Amino acid sequence: MGKRIGTRTVRLERPPAVLGFAAVGGHMEGKGPLREQFDEISEDHFWGQKTWEQGESTMQKHALRKALEKATLHEEEIDYVFAGDLLNQCIGSSFSLRDSNIPFYGLYGACSTMGESLSLAAMMIDGGFAERTAALTSSHFCTAERQYRMPVPYGSQRTPTAQWTATAAGCCILGEEGGGPYVTHITAGKIVDMGIADPNNMGAAMAPAAHNTLSVLFRDTRTKPADYDLIVTGDLGKLGHDIVVDLFAKEGVDMTKNYDDCGLLLFDREGQDMHCGGSGCGCSASVLCGYLLRGMREKKWNKILFAPTGALLSPTSSYQGESIPGICHAVILSNERGE
Amino acid sequence: MGKRIGTRTVRLERPPAVLGFAAVGGHMEGKGPLREQFDEISEDHFWGQKTWEQGESTMQKHALRKALEKATLHEEEIDYVFAGDLLNQCIGSSFSLRDSNIPFYGLYGACSTMGESLSLAAMMIDGGFAERTAALTSSHFCTAERQYRMPVPYGSQRTPTAQWTATAAGCCILGEEGGGPYVTHITAGKIVDMGIADPNNMGAAMAPAAHNTLSVLFRDTRTKPADYDLIVTGDLGKLGHDIVVDLFAKEGVDMTKNYDDCGLLLFDREGQDMHCGGSGCGCSASVLCGYLLRGMREKKWNKILFAPTGALLSPTSSYQGESIPGICHAVILSNERGE
Repeated sequence: MGKRIGTRTVRLERPPAVLGFAAVGGHMEGKGPLREQFDEISEDHFWGQKTWEQGESTMQKHALRKALEKATLHEEEIDYVFAGDLLNQCIGSSFSLRDSNIPFYGLYGACSTMGESLSLAAMMIDGGFAERTAALTSSHFCTAERQYRMPVPYGSQRTPTAQWTATAAGCCILGEEGGGPYVTHITAGKIVDMGIADPNNMGAAMAPAAHNTLSVLFRDTRTKPADYDLIVTGDLGKLGHDIVVDLFAKEGVDMTKNYDDCGLLLFDREGQDMHCGGSGCGCSASVLCGYLLRGMREKKWNKILFAPTGALLSPTSSYQGESIPGICHAVILSNERGE
Repeated sequence: MGKRIGTRTVRLERPPAVLGFAAVGGHMEGKGPLREQFDEISEDHFWGQKTWEQGESTMQKHALRKALEKATLHEEEIDYVFAGDLLNQCIGSSFSLRDSNIPFYGLYGACSTMGESLSLAAMMIDGGFAERTAALTSSHFCTAERQYRMPVPYGSQRTPTAQWTATAAGCCILGEEGGGPYVTHITAGKIVDMGIADPNNMGAAMAPAAHNTLSVLFRDTRTKPADYDLIVTGDLGKLGHDIVVDLFAKEGVDMTKNYDDCGLLLFDREGQDMHCGGSGCGCSASVLCGYLLRGMREKKWNKILFAPTGALLSPTSSYQGESIPGICHAVILSNERGE
């Protein structure tokens, strides 16, 4: 059973262990610097299906299946899956789990969904409601472009502040007991909206939410950036990342040593012409469930602060002139289980 | 800390108490049989805003504010809000909570969202992660029609099996201690898809999911329909309700005595020309947070099984010929806190 510490943070009393994890990605992800960290790369962006949406669901299925395989578990051994994606009515998740028998709680946290799903999946175990849970999210460049901007075949030009939605999915399976890493702390996000209304500049819209959640986490846990081997936000991209560094610098907090962003890690921004970097639920999910958790298992890092961010807009809200509400859910992962 | 019983059910060890609840609705809801059960009825379906979407967010704000008032609580005393709605990217919820400081977990469970949010809100308390939580959902006839079917001004004719999306919101606040009713058991939904692909017949698509979750709940808790004063599904409407009765009848289980549906309760089907009944996240939310919880406080019923259902489709999935995945999340509410 968890203990609330400070205003928005929970310290898990028996930190749940990561039992298995898997990342799957598409063509561009396979050309990027993390290509070796994926469990599966598909050159076919339909994933053998007839539509991109079906392809996205298939990606999620593969991520879940691979994570189960790596944890040597069967689907029946998972008590709950927390899943979400960017598609209208979250069909990426509901269709990926249509043939499964795992009890399902659907989430929507935009690109922060991997943080939200991991938080709830961990609390369900520490609260005694589950032995094993799964956190699962995805995004797909072609489904997202069609839904949020323009159909891909139109070949619309992208603005310099735009990010590239990752075609990727990640799945992380947690359990009561296991070798780790462990989820030790969770800081829930709250909505922060500083009035930015440009849907092609989501990094700037989400950066204040990341700053808010990270500040609260540092205060609640009485830690500072240097206490982590790595701090990673999800999908702020170049501009958002730099804003977070600036916001902390103004408060005398140095984030220049060990702070990175999943949107900057996934692609080679210059070589792959990605403008501000990657984005989408699948970006932070696949970076976590590939590069980051592998690196923790290999002791490259022992303590990571994973803080994916979401822009809670829709095309309708943008057409109506609304600004972009941001949110950031943070999770501390450690190779030490602690008390 | 909860105890898992059977395959998909959790028995809460210290059942969280309902501290406050509120239902708000629109014009049609104010003409229906439950008009006296609402805390607020607005004749203005814009709720004083410029767009229907902003109106829906405003409805959610009002439901949260009224529920807090009735519980004599302030926003700062709520540790987490679990909220969702039907709009693309769930903007009904994210914009309603934009000005609030409550940590926010966004959900998507279509019309089952009130069951999902109540489940997670209760487990967060029983697990020791929160003292007080809120479950909040909404739907709006005009935003839903525009998004799922046709803009309202077109005046499209509705099929006989169609349901009417409620313009309503409901909020329920839970806490560690209080006078009740109490959330005693939770059965998580799993996706059930029997191949029905007609988006104008969602009751039939969701009925097998309701039958599945209710069957599991009866088995896991070793109860039968007669052990409840009232069993209420959410938004199956006339056709779906009758299918559930039939499915149980085939197994020799009598559901004819005490089983109703939020979609049948909210409107006068004949008098209001509602075809199969009401639907939308706001339907089961407002029926629960008005009629049902009031009735429990007045001892009209002492034990209710609340089981809202969701159709996890999108217009895109329907255009692509997909069938409709259904889900049902069930919660037992009791005036007796139990062991």
